[in-house]
Amino acid sequence: MKTSIATVSLSGELPEKLDAIARAGFNGVEIFENDFLAFDGSARDVGKMVRDHGLEITLFQPFRDFEGMPEPQRSRAFDRAERKFDVMQDLGTDLVLVCSNVSPIALGGVDRAAADFHELGERAAKRGLRVGYQALAWGRHINDHRDAWEIVRRADHPSIGLILDSFHTLARKIDVNSIRSIPKEKIFIIQLADAPLIDMDLLYWSRHYRNMPGEGDLPVLDFMRSVAATGYDGYLSLEIFNDQFRGGSPKPIATDGHRSLIYLGDQVKQSEPDVAMTVPAMPGPIEVNGVEFVEFAANEDEARELASLLNTLGFRKTGTHKTKQVSRYSQGGINLVINTEREGFAHSSYAVHGTSAYALGLNVADARATVERARALGAEPFEQGVGPSEVTMPAIRGVGGGVLYFVDGKSELRNIWEIEFDPVEDDATTRDAGLLQFDHVAQTMNFDEMLTWLLFYTSILKARKTPMVDIIDPSGIVRSQVVENEAGSLRITMNGAENRRTLAGHFLAEKFGSSVQHLAFRTDDIFETAKVLKANGFVPLQISPNYYDDVEARFGLDPDLADRLKEANILYDRDENGEYFQLYSPNYGEGFFFEIVQRRGYKGYGAPNAIFRIAAQKRFMRPQGMPKKR
Amino acid sequence: MKTSIATVSLSGELPEKLDAIARAGFNGVEIFENDFLAFDGSARDVGKMVRDHGLEITLFQPFRDFEGMPEPQRSRAFDRAERKFDVMQDLGTDLVLVCSNVSPIALGGVDRAAADFHELGERAAKRGLRVGYQALAWGRHINDHRDAWEIVRRADHPSIGLILDSFHTLARKIDVNSIRSIPKEKIFIIQLADAPLIDMDLLYWSRHYRNMPGEGDLPVLDFMRSVAATGYDGYLSLEIFNDQFRGGSPKPIATDGHRSLIYLGDQVKQSEPDVAMTVPAMPGPIEVNGVEFVEFAANEDEARELASLLNTLGFRKTGTHKTKQVSRYSQGGINLVINTEREGFAHSSYAVHGTSAYALGLNVADARATVERARALGAEPFEQGVGPSEVTMPAIRGVGGGVLYFVDGKSELRNIWEIEFDPVEDDATTRDAGLLQFDHVAQTMNFDEMLTWLLFYTSILKARKTPMVDIIDPSGIVRSQVVENEAGSLRITMNGAENRRTLAGHFLAEKFGSSVQHLAFRTDDIFETAKVLKANGFVPLQISPNYYDDVEARFGLDPDLADRLKEANILYDRDENGEYFQLYSPNYGEGFFFEIVQRRGYKGYGAPNAIFRIAAQKRFMRPQGMPKKR
Repeated sequence: MKTSIATVSLSGELPEKLDAIARAGFNGVEIFENDFLAFDGSARDVGKMVRDHGLEITLFQPFRDFEGMPEPQRSRAFDRAERKFDVMQDLGTDLVLVCSNVSPIALGGVDRAAADFHELGERAAKRGLRVGYQALAWGRHINDHRDAWEIVRRADHPSIGLILDSFHTLARKIDVNSIRSIPKEKIFIIQLADAPLIDMDLLYWSRHYRNMPGEGDLPVLDFMRSVAATGYDGYLSLEIFNDQFRGGSPKPIATDGHRSLIYLGDQVKQSEPDVAMTVPAMPGPIEVNGVEFVEFAANEDEARELASLLNTLGFRKTGTHKTKQVSRYSQGGINLVINTEREGFAHSSYAVHGTSAYALGLNVADARATVERARALGAEPFEQGVGPSEVTMPAIRGVGGGVLYFVDGKSELRNIWEIEFDPVEDDATTRDAGLLQFDHVAQTMNFDEMLTWLLFYTSILKARKTPMVDIIDPSGIVRSQVVENEAGSLRITMNGAENRRTLAGHFLAEKFGSSVQHLAFRTDDIFETAKVLKANGFVPLQISPNYYDDVEARFGLDPDLADRLKEANILYDRDENGEYFQLYSPNYGEGFFFEIVQRRGYKGYGAPNAIFRIAAQKRFMRPQGMPKKR
Repeated sequence: MKTSIATVSLSGELPEKLDAIARAGFNGVEIFENDFLAFDGSARDVGKMVRDHGLEITLFQPFRDFEGMPEPQRSRAFDRAERKFDVMQDLGTDLVLVCSNVSPIALGGVDRAAADFHELGERAAKRGLRVGYQALAWGRHINDHRDAWEIVRRADHPSIGLILDSFHTLARKIDVNSIRSIPKEKIFIIQLADAPLIDMDLLYWSRHYRNMPGEGDLPVLDFMRSVAATGYDGYLSLEIFNDQFRGGSPKPIATDGHRSLIYLGDQVKQSEPDVAMTVPAMPGPIEVNGVEFVEFAANEDEARELASLLNTLGFRKTGTHKTKQVSRYSQGGINLVINTEREGFAHSSYAVHGTSAYALGLNVADARATVERARALGAEPFEQGVGPSEVTMPAIRGVGGGVLYFVDGKSELRNIWEIEFDPVEDDATTRDAGLLQFDHVAQTMNFDEMLTWLLFYTSILKARKTPMVDIIDPSGIVRSQVVENEAGSLRITMNGAENRRTLAGHFLAEKFGSSVQHLAFRTDDIFETAKVLKANGFVPLQISPNYYDDVEARFGLDPDLADRLKEANILYDRDENGEYFQLYSPNYGEGFFFEIVQRRGYKGYGAPNAIFRIAAQKRFMRPQGMPKKR
């Protein structure tokens, strides 16, 4: 397989787009006509510029409203085609995309269209060019790839072939198995796009909402498996119309696009090893056993404050690093690490973002394989000098600048805590609060970055994404989506903020970028945990009493349970799978906070409670709402 | 009529929302339950706070999944209702909104639902409360107000009535005349919302895209005329779910909301004077004869530069103000005014925004009536001290800080130029370029402000809005919408920018707010105009030659015409009404520019050409693309 992307998918002027496309690792590029027309160099200049970037022009597009026209429009269309053939020859590409006619004067008729294409094929062949026909989902007469294929078959010309586009086929829910009977040499190129599943007008959806394969909800993998079954092993080319991408920065979007194709190719190969498609070899998706640790970068004062807070949450200091200013705090299976080194990556992260949870350690089936897979998918490995009595922990950089470490049950990685840390006895007088594991790690980011993170996690790890939900902050909507695995041992919630007045947006602005905003720990008995926390001096976030009257009525709760929830400031939710209990800390500094949850079969994350939690946090942030400093 | 708005329509916490609602002039407020639950005061506190703002609570909402439930859910629903009745009594409101059941276990059946409502009516009556039933467009069994009305009719209880919502009725295209047979006393309240016409899932559309009546495309006026025909003269209450409003600032959005209701009431009364509805008296929508002048604020150096530029465009200095540092430049029916006063409003505008076209003078049928209507619709009148030999020109403030002046053919306003200005002879050697009139004034704003401006113009002036189109800037999409009248004597294009990298967004950032970004003048012979301009030393914006090859092929132009277009850098478009020619200046400073157009029957604004114009402007802005300074 070779990778390509249409220039229309990215923002910027043509040279900027080509630069981003080449750097992301694509082999080819579709020249979208308007990008050429708006550019002030000739077609030859553009062709040279593309080749100077090491890229091939996979096709020139789109040529519209061609087939089945009455005269004089029919002759005009052929004249127009000849003009575009001139441009193609100057550009140095042999393929043009003709999309199905949308003109109200188009006559229709498969044989008429086939005859037009036969003639166009004759003209193209004289110049050594080829024409690919594509059914637009909203074409006037032809809007199904099966009909486009019938026209190409009847056109019966070696210079005329088919262009399939996953969006146009999947948007109309056309059976993708119909692709399996098309001869591979008649498929001139494959265009790919995904989209979120929102029921709306096809053209509007297509023009504004497309995204990279794997970022949306369409069965693009099924489409590609059918394509691969034909023996096709040519270009996979992205054609993405997306408002957000058009207004974004071209480099990260090109990187996402390239990752999406490599990931898609890998999925095809993993599910159908016998297909002809050549895809880069890499280990399969990585099984995650759990979050091994979260590491904070802090200065010494803040580290002391954080440590005393962790004590009230029932954590104990259990180790100090043998050679570095790094402490380990533990409770149940949870490890929190505080790094106060004055140099190195943690320190530079601290210098930019202040105290923050800058690194996440995942316990995976195979740590080195994880990095290998991540690299194949375009992630950047993270390496730092390793001192004596330190283990080289496989790691990659996250999308926003943080680090993801990986440990596994193999060799020395199994014993990192013993190898790197000296055990210590904490003399804190607070008690263990029964916190057992990380339940989830909540990451806040700009809304624009959510798709990038989503693709990053789901392409590398064996994980799925949940549908997006709206979190109602009094100052705006925050979009939330979760990456999780079947076992529940990996749960990363991603909150995308669109303005700075929301709690998430404010945090983001203060942290200068995406970061972990809260950590949720699991307990098996939230009321007992709440009791111990209280004894430890922990003051939970105060929820409005109005909430409890409603919860009692809404779920028909036993009044005694409702009273206990209210007394302990515990939020409650229930779905078809079971019950959920949530206890929050107030927010510290610019909005970091802790959550304690108990799940009784419940699978979600308490989204209906978020509005009440956020309102309480905003009250807490107001000067008059500040409880006395602990 | 009295005005109300649901708290869910605005961003912020409850006290902030109430403050915005009261200041905007509403009489009442719907308390959205989550706003109450998230607030940390009691229902009595909320009730007092509302009344302290001089507002009435029009209703408490929503009460969900009530009617037609099997046991034990049915009993639970009644218990829940009693709890909410407690809250209502504490709040001090007698009306609750019950929306039609969406639960999968709801049984359906009009008589069953009617029986449930009859019983609920009995319970409500004991407390002096009332229940309004509303059909959600996506209700499980009831999703049509006609069916909801049948249930209310059969419930046959004075405490049970109907709540109509324009969105739910119009989204399903239900005949609004069916409302005319409902007795007015059974309509407990009217909720109003508009929405842009995008074909999509009803629930998704409703939750994210609603907007104020008049801001969208639904026939809300037809709905209201039917309501008014019943004799209803109670509250009109806005219930707007809109992502943008939820993330915006509550005050301007509340102001828009109030304006939308007053405007709607006026439209009902104008079209059906006999209805019982009481609406504020005001002059009817104002006929605009044309743009009389545009006024720039500048310092003296910049004024000289601007004057010399106007000379190359064929303008002559025709007057100097008798008492102020203000000059008039004219050509055909176009007047441009440059104000270099060191004090007064123009100067303070200059101090904030730099040189800009800060004021627009419209020639209307009745200038004083315009201000009167604008005031009735919540606009702020603009007044400035008037010196000797000056005319008090009726004026209002625009949405973003600029000024709108109005002149008419009456009394001294007919002769403002003669009264205020001394004629002068310009000794410039440049020639008249045949510019005749303002064709359009193009205003750039944040995308978030577009609806506000749209409602502002269309409510005050006799004008319509065109559908929104996407302008493709290489750095993102800019949304464009036009306010125009039938005669074409008023044409204001509004461009809403979402990021600062687009040409519009850059201009906006540099100007610190919405402003006029370009002025388009009309000529009857663009080639002749281009010839004179060239002789005057004007250098037009250089369009890519690639554009002309395509235009020739696309429209089948005579090669000679295509060559002339290319030679003169004139852009071309054609639609079913005729032809359009556009010639641009480069952009000056941070992005202001001039356009010259010729219309041969064409009604649009050349949107397909925008991408080529913007690309050319961006090239011009790059240091290497700068032609030598004139």
